[in-house]
Amino acid sequence: MKQSLELNNVYVLATATVAGYLEGKGPLRDYFSKVYDNQYAGEKSFEDAEKKMLKDACSLLMSKSTINNKVDLILGGDLSNQINVSNYVASLYKIPFIGVYGACSTSVLSMIVASSYIETGLINGALCFTSSHNGAAERQFRYPTEYGVQRKSTSTWTATGAGAIVLSNKKSNIKVTRFTLGKVIDWDYKNVNDMGSAMAPAAYDTLKVHLEDFNLSSNYYDLILTGDLSKIGSEILVSLLKKDNITITNHNDCGLLLYDMNKQSVDSGGSGAACSALVTFSYIIDKLKKKELTKVLLIATGALHSSTSSQQKNSIPAIAHAIALEV
Amino acid sequence: MKQSLELNNVYVLATATVAGYLEGKGPLRDYFSKVYDNQYAGEKSFEDAEKKMLKDACSLLMSKSTINNKVDLILGGDLSNQINVSNYVASLYKIPFIGVYGACSTSVLSMIVASSYIETGLINGALCFTSSHNGAAERQFRYPTEYGVQRKSTSTWTATGAGAIVLSNKKSNIKVTRFTLGKVIDWDYKNVNDMGSAMAPAAYDTLKVHLEDFNLSSNYYDLILTGDLSKIGSEILVSLLKKDNITITNHNDCGLLLYDMNKQSVDSGGSGAACSALVTFSYIIDKLKKKELTKVLLIATGALHSSTSSQQKNSIPAIAHAIALEV
Repeated sequence: MKQSLELNNVYVLATATVAGYLEGKGPLRDYFSKVYDNQYAGEKSFEDAEKKMLKDACSLLMSKSTINNKVDLILGGDLSNQINVSNYVASLYKIPFIGVYGACSTSVLSMIVASSYIETGLINGALCFTSSHNGAAERQFRYPTEYGVQRKSTSTWTATGAGAIVLSNKKSNIKVTRFTLGKVIDWDYKNVNDMGSAMAPAAYDTLKVHLEDFNLSSNYYDLILTGDLSKIGSEILVSLLKKDNITITNHNDCGLLLYDMNKQSVDSGGSGAACSALVTFSYIIDKLKKKELTKVLLIATGALHSSTSSQQKNSIPAIAHAIALEV
Repeated sequence: MKQSLELNNVYVLATATVAGYLEGKGPLRDYFSKVYDNQYAGEKSFEDAEKKMLKDACSLLMSKSTINNKVDLILGGDLSNQINVSNYVASLYKIPFIGVYGACSTSVLSMIVASSYIETGLINGALCFTSSHNGAAERQFRYPTEYGVQRKSTSTWTATGAGAIVLSNKKSNIKVTRFTLGKVIDWDYKNVNDMGSAMAPAAYDTLKVHLEDFNLSSNYYDLILTGDLSKIGSEILVSLLKKDNITITNHNDCGLLLYDMNKQSVDSGGSGAACSALVTFSYIIDKLKKKELTKVLLIATGALHSSTSSQQKNSIPAIAHAIALEV
């Protein structure tokens, strides 16, 4: 393994998704395991609402003995400071926990580390999870939404929700076939209202390495799905690849699939750690099960800044991690 | 592997430590690779000072070709929101990065994941790192130090500094022999001015599991070294073990070794992600090299709260990860 590894023993056992209010009004509503019809999910704070959603997603899986007896390890992370949401949910299980942080790439980062442990026989299976909450993330990274700061056309909408997936060595219809770990790419971009532009070069780097490491052409996959590049980031990715004479016609972005881009006011698209998980663990898994898709490369992208680093006028480092799901 | 794994192919190739002002005045001064004589390390902010220290620690190792050509993967994390310090330093290398978060247990968490990858032959070696900064951590987790809030006798002192270690499959005098991953333990403790009490049950749980999984008695090790339980947490650990008829006479804590507890005003002892790294990667490694110690179990402990979770009156989840170093 350098950046990439081919996998022969890793399968998707089960997934669960819990969506927030706006996500539940979007085109993927019927694919989610559960939808809350308000931002608080019955709790007193946005943070507690996020914890409840992540707890729900994990519980939907772990309450089944056929699933939880396959889980030797839990891996997860989220956008909250000190991944406190994930740490809380992990405390509900008497299972070893590896906390990871890759911002909005966390879904795939946790799946990659889990896949490495399963592939090499160290564990039989693992629960991977991530979450984000629009209200909690906005006030943590930018301003409380109550301030009513005007959104920019480059802004993305941090998704509210949680996703969980159990990977294991037990054969299923959906196989995890390969992964590529990302490098941190910092191209000195500083606009915290444009995550797509900040992250596109990282997605480009990881996709290029992935195709080279496995000697694959981009049309090998039915779908190359980025996590939350949004409209702007997706355009940059396509144009960066074009300079290398790589034309991708099979690209889409979870942030463009999660919402109705014409009717829902999400500006450049969806984002947040939950974005890639909500779309992939529901809609994409369903398409794979029905064989409407057979080869999907998920490239989750993460902007690795903090509110402190932005206030101190530092650039936004970014990373992208890729994992392939095949029928 | 359940929680624990025995290792046969993992060795310590090299370590580096960069210490802050107060740490450099402590008893371990001569063991550090580099010491800064003020909190800013020539930078304009505490956060930039922490980045500089971590950059220095990594650079001391990676500038040597015999070391950097063994590094296929970087793993690290720190206390800053969104582990921004680690993400910045990882961006300086064109090497895949796994960001991890285990608060002050991060040093061992990164070493455990690296060891898993090396043991199973996926990589030849990895750079693991962590850091913390007293000024940056105090204002992030509690209050800016300029407020002059009175410290409590239960308070610990977040260490300023950084530590880096390269683990690889290349044989050396110091072998990584086994590890135990921790579970998140939440005993509903809420005092953010007493991290030792919050974390002691997690250290107890991981140590118990470690001894059971490997069928070892506690005196197998010359030294059982916790990361930052401090005076209070150490006493709780010893008393919890006593209830199980386990007497440990070979215990010490990095937070009690890093400072002169009689002369330096650190109240209950040192803490912070850098605490275990500063002590272990300098003084303990030196003792192992000289065979003054031959079997050391390092149990790094982490309090997994955030300032938001504490302000919302939530309890402090904790975790402890253990790794054994032997000559």
